[in-house]
Amino acid sequence: MTASYILTLSCPDTIGIVASVTEFVARHQGWIIEANQHADTSTNYFFMRIEIKADSLNVSLDDFKQAFAPIGERFKMTWQITDTAQKKQLYLFVSKQAHCLADLLYRLRSGEYHAEVKGVVSNHEDLKSFVEWHGVPYHYIPMNPDTKQAAFKEITALLSENTFDAIVLARFMQILPDTLAEQHYGKIINIHHSFLPAFLGAGAYQQAHDRGVKLVGATSHYVTDKLDEGPIIDQGVTRIAHHHSVDDIARLTRDIEKQVLSRALHAHLQDRIVIHNHKTIVFE
Amino acid sequence: MTASYILTLSCPDTIGIVASVTEFVARHQGWIIEANQHADTSTNYFFMRIEIKADSLNVSLDDFKQAFAPIGERFKMTWQITDTAQKKQLYLFVSKQAHCLADLLYRLRSGEYHAEVKGVVSNHEDLKSFVEWHGVPYHYIPMNPDTKQAAFKEITALLSENTFDAIVLARFMQILPDTLAEQHYGKIINIHHSFLPAFLGAGAYQQAHDRGVKLVGATSHYVTDKLDEGPIIDQGVTRIAHHHSVDDIARLTRDIEKQVLSRALHAHLQDRIVIHNHKTIVFE
Amino acid sequence: MTASYILTLSCPDTIGIVASVTEFVARHQGWIIEANQHADTSTNYFFMRIEIKADSLNVSLDDFKQAFAPIGERFKMTWQITDTAQKKQLYLFVSKQAHCLADLLYRLRSGEYHAEVKGVVSNHEDLKSFVEWHGVPYHYIPMNPDTKQAAFKEITALLSENTFDAIVLARFMQILPDTLAEQHYGKIINIHHSFLPAFLGAGAYQQAHDRGVKLVGATSHYVTDKLDEGPIIDQGVTRIAHHHSVDDIARLTRDIEKQVLSRALHAHLQDRIVIHNHKTIVFE
Amino acid sequence: MTASYILTLSCPDTIGIVASVTEFVARHQGWIIEANQHADTSTNYFFMRIEIKADSLNVSLDDFKQAFAPIGERFKMTWQITDTAQKKQLYLFVSKQAHCLADLLYRLRSGEYHAEVKGVVSNHEDLKSFVEWHGVPYHYIPMNPDTKQAAFKEITALLSENTFDAIVLARFMQILPDTLAEQHYGKIINIHHSFLPAFLGAGAYQQAHDRGVKLVGATSHYVTDKLDEGPIIDQGVTRIAHHHSVDDIARLTRDIEKQVLSRALHAHLQDRIVIHNHKTIVFE
Repeated sequence: MTASYILTLSCPDTIGIVASVTEFVARHQGWIIEANQHADTSTNYFFMRIEIKADSLNVSLDDFKQAFAPIGERFKMTWQITDTAQKKQLYLFVSKQAHCLADLLYRLRSGEYHAEVKGVVSNHEDLKSFVEWHGVPYHYIPMNPDTKQAAFKEITALLSENTFDAIVLARFMQILPDTLAEQHYGKIINIHHSFLPAFLGAGAYQQAHDRGVKLVGATSHYVTDKLDEGPIIDQGVTRIAHHHSVDDIARLTRDIEKQVLSRALHAHLQDRIVIHNHKTIVFE
Repeated sequence: MTASYILTLSCPDTIGIVASVTEFVARHQGWIIEANQHADTSTNYFFMRIEIKADSLNVSLDDFKQAFAPIGERFKMTWQITDTAQKKQLYLFVSKQAHCLADLLYRLRSGEYHAEVKGVVSNHEDLKSFVEWHGVPYHYIPMNPDTKQAAFKEITALLSENTFDAIVLARFMQILPDTLAEQHYGKIINIHHSFLPAFLGAGAYQQAHDRGVKLVGATSHYVTDKLDEGPIIDQGVTRIAHHHSVDDIARLTRDIEKQVLSRALHAHLQDRIVIHNHKTIVFE
Repeated sequence: MTASYILTLSCPDTIGIVASVTEFVARHQGWIIEANQHADTSTNYFFMRIEIKADSLNVSLDDFKQAFAPIGERFKMTWQITDTAQKKQLYLFVSKQAHCLADLLYRLRSGEYHAEVKGVVSNHEDLKSFVEWHGVPYHYIPMNPDTKQAAFKEITALLSENTFDAIVLARFMQILPDTLAEQHYGKIINIHHSFLPAFLGAGAYQQAHDRGVKLVGATSHYVTDKLDEGPIIDQGVTRIAHHHSVDDIARLTRDIEKQVLSRALHAHLQDRIVIHNHKTIVFE
Repeated sequence: MTASYILTLSCPDTIGIVASVTEFVARHQGWIIEANQHADTSTNYFFMRIEIKADSLNVSLDDFKQAFAPIGERFKMTWQITDTAQKKQLYLFVSKQAHCLADLLYRLRSGEYHAEVKGVVSNHEDLKSFVEWHGVPYHYIPMNPDTKQAAFKEITALLSENTFDAIVLARFMQILPDTLAEQHYGKIINIHHSFLPAFLGAGAYQQAHDRGVKLVGATSHYVTDKLDEGPIIDQGVTRIAHHHSVDDIARLTRDIEKQVLSRALHAHLQDRIVIHNHKTIVFE
């Protein structure tokens, strides 16, 4: 993989944004590998992602950033430039069900993501040995109604001592405290076991069975303080029929969960997602 | 197409149902073309569909039916035997949007369904010429808040004077009176422009856009007196992205509506659907 | 629909293309509605599509084109600017099967495409009345082994007397002469009734059945002088099972054909497709 | 899971098969959980799968089998009755790529299959530690052009000393000797990294990229002595676009490979597949 710099930005739409940005890149000899943009006509907002070959620039990354600042200011941009040479840092949160965890750990191990797991947090001990075989620290933090508050205090402490680019709730069956959700908004990715907004909350497999739907699915979204209402990143479905039991639905949906979560994380780690007004722009 | 008889039945599950039924068929020299069954373990109910080559039987259809009656009684079956030599009779209800209507009329014309349209009912005049070109009577019955009750009286009268196997609400934007829905329960098929139970009611395209889902879909279901809550027959979805406007969503969903409605009608006309407790068994 | 100008271009990749193009657009006050680009790293080629709000420009379209020419020359671009205010002109070629034709005519009639059909060409008379009901001229040009050459001479004459943006082979079962294919390369869209490159030639439904595949599909591609080998625009598939006969496969595939062809035409009419080395870039 | 007996059979089609079989089951008080059948009209062959609750029978499994034999003989059936209480036995063959292996091992570990792995065979040492962590013996049998024959002799010996229900080639990049393929026909499941019959042999990702297809897929099939031509069990596809590199195609297809192989194995282990003339009947 060639190292590259990824510039993502959003700002009120107007004439000349792309010209200014790309003229700036060209002036510094930046070779554009990929560029995507989107103009949201309903909110009159503009979004852009540019990937630049790192070694094409005639200045350092720091100088490049500094030189870009006036453009950012001029167009009132929210912007960032990241360096793909820096491995992204992850935390994975799980309970007992390991299908998403096992899938993600394999992907990480095989180099599918340019990222590493700083730790796995779980309220159960079940997956300790499996996680540690992968060389990843396992933080077993039990939770019952009495200890829940203390547990999340411990988790908050752990997170505040570290830097990270994403927390993946890989079928973590606990609701995060609002403060945690707010503090790390845009960094916490959940996988919900239904096609949202159908079948909220727990028991979505059963709800789907009871309603008699002919497709079941999964939804990956950023976590907010409103359960199952965060910005959707990706979704998938699979066909079911009358003969599928709740267990069958669970089994088939688990496969969709793995797929959808891994795709969402892939996009997140490549800085392909911009959140805007409770919706996502995903530059594929 | 070889003519065949289709036996569909449902009854409380017990030992010996299939044996009794198939022994009965074999005793009358019936050649089974296709057979499907389903045992619902949660309600302990049994469902079956058998298609028998018409000319293989050594008795007339009437005698066959009469001879079957005791078996039906013994197992407390709800059952019917239909003859595929009889073309199914349809009514299509539309408003202004014609994508489903045009699609169904083409399918009917090309012989895809063994059925004929007795009439198209509409609260608008727009599609009259197109429908009449197909040789189908067009019942233009205007509806405004004042005339709505009278209009449905007229529709009810039309339906009561005729026999039919299905009413297809092909994007008919009016809610049927409860009495009509109840009287023809299991015969009225609607196409809803979302993946139910997400996005109920009108404006589902807009709702999907506002929520930022990444898949949009359509749902075909039998009509009940509870809007959008009838037994689901079939569903489909298609992928969308952040750059799709409400109009794009409408355009993409219309294609799914056509597909899903045509599949649902196909299953209905071949007597492949059994309704049980607000859900459908669809023998494919 | 707001009128817009669509600039599409391709050229050898280098630094500064986007900057030059977008600076040019901004200098003429052009408001960019949508922009897409692609850098093909294996051939080192660059592709771009920009949609500009027509009434935002401070010059006429002709002046805009003229002013752009030096940029095109500098980067050795193949480029064009089209005006969406101009309705695209189509010819549809059919034989007897009308599912794609009926689907396209409905879409055209309902305004889904900003286009009009100049004529339908067919080697059979079957669809004359249906096409003429839509107000479209029907050119019945019979073809048998003896008259085929003369027939295509007549077709060539018809085409040479007219301008058009696309010829759609909507299940036209005749192979075009090489000269016609070459002359209108990039304008003739075919729908093949299989997932290419599996199952070439006629009889693809039967071939799929014989091989026992579990998915069947359709492929839309530009026509070249090599049968079924032109640049692929779009493809789709649907699931089948052991119980599906060749007729069932045909029925199910027809639906995919309609979908795939209509999507391909949609992209073509919006100038979203660039052909490069026997492959397509489709800016969605 | 309640233990059950699974009867699968195939025979020339005639009147009375289902009646005889189900009457036999009912006479022994057998409670049918699930039943599927298929009549292939082109070859006039009949196929059936019946799942019977084990503890409902009033005789032992051996007596039941013995009593069934005359029916089998009468209709010239190929038949078997298996007991789901017996865990199925598997061998997994891999090379270096572990995505399918990791996926299957997780599924086995989580109880998704009622089966256990007797051993993993590989021509590379890479996955030894991962496999052994799962408590599964790892047979490292190196293969180069000189040692290949000896290696397969060793594998053949290993297999002949053991009983097993399936060998899964989970991206095993070596071609099995014809003798092995023939000896275990119907037991060896391969996953091919394309939508067969498109893109045979190795390098299917590259072939798909070169052809410019818009969908890529994977195919699971039984292994025969003709490479990539065995009976297809299941297939899947995913959408790609012009911007996807060969590496992207590989990454996206790997997900389909996992899905398709796991579904195929699921059906195989539940005795849902009957092979007939190079095609499969899969009772879902």
